[in-house]
Amino acid sequence: LGVVSSPAAVDLIGVLAYGELGSFERHATDAAAAPTLSDKVQLAAMAATEYRHFADLCAFLQTNGHDPIAAMQPFTAALDAFHASMAPRDWLEGIMKAYVGDGITADFYREMSAYVDHQTAELVVAVVSDTQMSDYAVGRLREAISADPKVAGRLALWGRRLMGELIGQATLVAGSRPAISALFLQHAAEVDGLVNRLTVAHSRRMDALGLAS
Amino acid sequence: LGVVSSPAAVDLIGVLAYGELGSFERHATDAAAAPTLSDKVQLAAMAATEYRHFADLCAFLQTNGHDPIAAMQPFTAALDAFHASMAPRDWLEGIMKAYVGDGITADFYREMSAYVDHQTAELVVAVVSDTQMSDYAVGRLREAISADPKVAGRLALWGRRLMGELIGQATLVAGSRPAISALFLQHAAEVDGLVNRLTVAHSRRMDALGLAS
Repeated sequence: LGVVSSPAAVDLIGVLAYGELGSFERHATDAAAAPTLSDKVQLAAMAATEYRHFADLCAFLQTNGHDPIAAMQPFTAALDAFHASMAPRDWLEGIMKAYVGDGITADFYREMSAYVDHQTAELVVAVVSDTQMSDYAVGRLREAISADPKVAGRLALWGRRLMGELIGQATLVAGSRPAISALFLQHAAEVDGLVNRLTVAHSRRMDALGLAS
Repeated sequence: LGVVSSPAAVDLIGVLAYGELGSFERHATDAAAAPTLSDKVQLAAMAATEYRHFADLCAFLQTNGHDPIAAMQPFTAALDAFHASMAPRDWLEGIMKAYVGDGITADFYREMSAYVDHQTAELVVAVVSDTQMSDYAVGRLREAISADPKVAGRLALWGRRLMGELIGQATLVAGSRPAISALFLQHAAEVDGLVNRLTVAHSRRMDALGLAS
């Protein structure tokens, strides 16, 4: 066994890897439904970036003696169910979902990285930081809102639903994994206020679109 | 302008690039619908490979002074219409479509590469040769056929339809582009029998599945 032997670190990398694989699939789906060839090309590039993150996480697990499939498997049912229940109704809702989801995910894993070994933390932070989605999404969503003001209300509602469901889902998933639950308990003082911090950052992202959160 | 200035070469790279972008999207869609996590991971890796091919083709166009979007644009409507009319009904038909489509595409572009400049030819051959889809697809399709013999008839029919539509579509697209039409005329003697050669290679791929073509 290599350096990453803590069950919490393996859980964290496993769920992040499956999340990146899902982001790859959803960006590719958004690329397929893109309104212009230029949007398609940009979304495909972002999907390819997510795949690279996924591959880096799998390689890291393997280097440290862990099977990536086994590390991801405990999280597939919950993540699949979440995404099935929160399927975007159109392309714009897909872009909004990627924007809100990537943002919260990055904030959450950055906090978690403080509680795992240095090498795991470094990889986690690199993977969640390297995303071009935010600038692209803000530009496209603002354009769509200014072209049709009715879009604002629908996207604001969708953003609130996404935030609520993401927090609920993350709590359930974390609670179902003893190693992650133990990590939260060990760091209760620092983790306290986590949901508040995620909510504040989410509000800032909604502000960037001119939407109430 | 760089070395790739022949309009036929730009057309060839443009249509191949848009084809690779579409393959990327379809492999990602197949990954999203995969029956097991291991299938998902393999299909995602193949999608990422198609994206790399796409990016290599775009970079090559740019290096030679051509805008990739402009080079692909003439082909988007025809390819999109083809794929919309030949949408797989389930995951297995998606794998079959990738297997049959990648095979014919590779054969076709390999023949075409003989009629363009050396650098274009080298890239085209590299892009269409570097695919892991064939082994994977043969394994999975044979498994599905032996598990349920009724699947054989359905896939054989689907393979025949795909072959017929691909040839028809390729003929239409080539005919709509003066530079490609001229290329065919210039090399009429060598191109003669092209459809026959593609059909023979297709039959060999169907044989590998134990299916009549």
